[in-house]
Amino acid sequence: MAKKSFPLAKVYSLLESGPVVLVTTARKGRANIMAMSWHMMVDFEPPLVSFIVSDRNHSFNLLKTTKECVINIPTLAIAEQAIGCGNTSGAKIDKFATFGLTARPAEQVQAPLIEECYASLECRIVDTKNVNKYGMFIAEVVQAWVDTKVKQPQTIHHYGKENFMVAGNHIKIKSKMK
Amino acid sequence: MAKKSFPLAKVYSLLESGPVVLVTTARKGRANIMAMSWHMMVDFEPPLVSFIVSDRNHSFNLLKTTKECVINIPTLAIAEQAIGCGNTSGAKIDKFATFGLTARPAEQVQAPLIEECYASLECRIVDTKNVNKYGMFIAEVVQAWVDTKVKQPQTIHHYGKENFMVAGNHIKIKSKMK
Repeated sequence: MAKKSFPLAKVYSLLESGPVVLVTTARKGRANIMAMSWHMMVDFEPPLVSFIVSDRNHSFNLLKTTKECVINIPTLAIAEQAIGCGNTSGAKIDKFATFGLTARPAEQVQAPLIEECYASLECRIVDTKNVNKYGMFIAEVVQAWVDTKVKQPQTIHHYGKENFMVAGNHIKIKSKMK
Repeated sequence: MAKKSFPLAKVYSLLESGPVVLVTTARKGRANIMAMSWHMMVDFEPPLVSFIVSDRNHSFNLLKTTKECVINIPTLAIAEQAIGCGNTSGAKIDKFATFGLTARPAEQVQAPLIEECYASLECRIVDTKNVNKYGMFIAEVVQAWVDTKVKQPQTIHHYGKENFMVAGNHIKIKSKMK
């Protein structure tokens, strides 16, 4: 795998720009993939991530039961497959087989990494107090992997329905922000 | 003001791509501005937004006390000023005066709209249960304003420290996602 271990203290820099992500879960040897845009960083280190999952998603109960997932970050190269994962249900199909995506074993969780994504974050759910009211999970990233050859990842960002934006020019602005 | 009232049911499409936003608060006639990247949609309608604010920010107590804010979305045209708001503290300076930004009265909250931002979301804080543990606020957007002449807003997205990405090409991918 081209991905290398990535410092947990820098995980926020992968997520705070708002990319569409692919969340993998696994139970009894069967893995699923869910597309997701409603996520945010909660803390730097250990990196905490919050995200919203509707109870209509097949992944909802998998997350509640296994308390584990991997947040994978796709780029334009697999945009069609990524959005395809959002258009289908793991209750009916094997998304890895359907979309030609490759599952690789994670190091600390049962859910798999997606080989074709440039970054993968192994997560343990640490807080489910807001799940019943908002579908809100809070997870700790326990291991991060990034393909460091990808310098300016063409992440995809959702604007609702069929509308997406591809990450554009990178700029530097003097900032005291972490 | 060039901004027009925007349907609450479509507010999610403004935020889920992960733009840097400018959060305004106001108390006793004095307004402040805070730059923020850690936010996510929580529900479609009424639109609920969650965001993280450190208690080291001047805006933290303003949010807790007034339970109101406006989430303004800047574009590349005012990127330097927007990040400047993130580099300074409202405890020391008037950010509107310092950065040449224009405060306009909101309709339903005391915090002002920022004229130079292409969209502004008037919010009431509806849930503070996660504030002590995570600095996490949950707000309901009660009124939204968008400059509809801006078709493909060049929002800015944070990758940590001085690194930002400007929203790039827009693409359409068949999606069943809302």
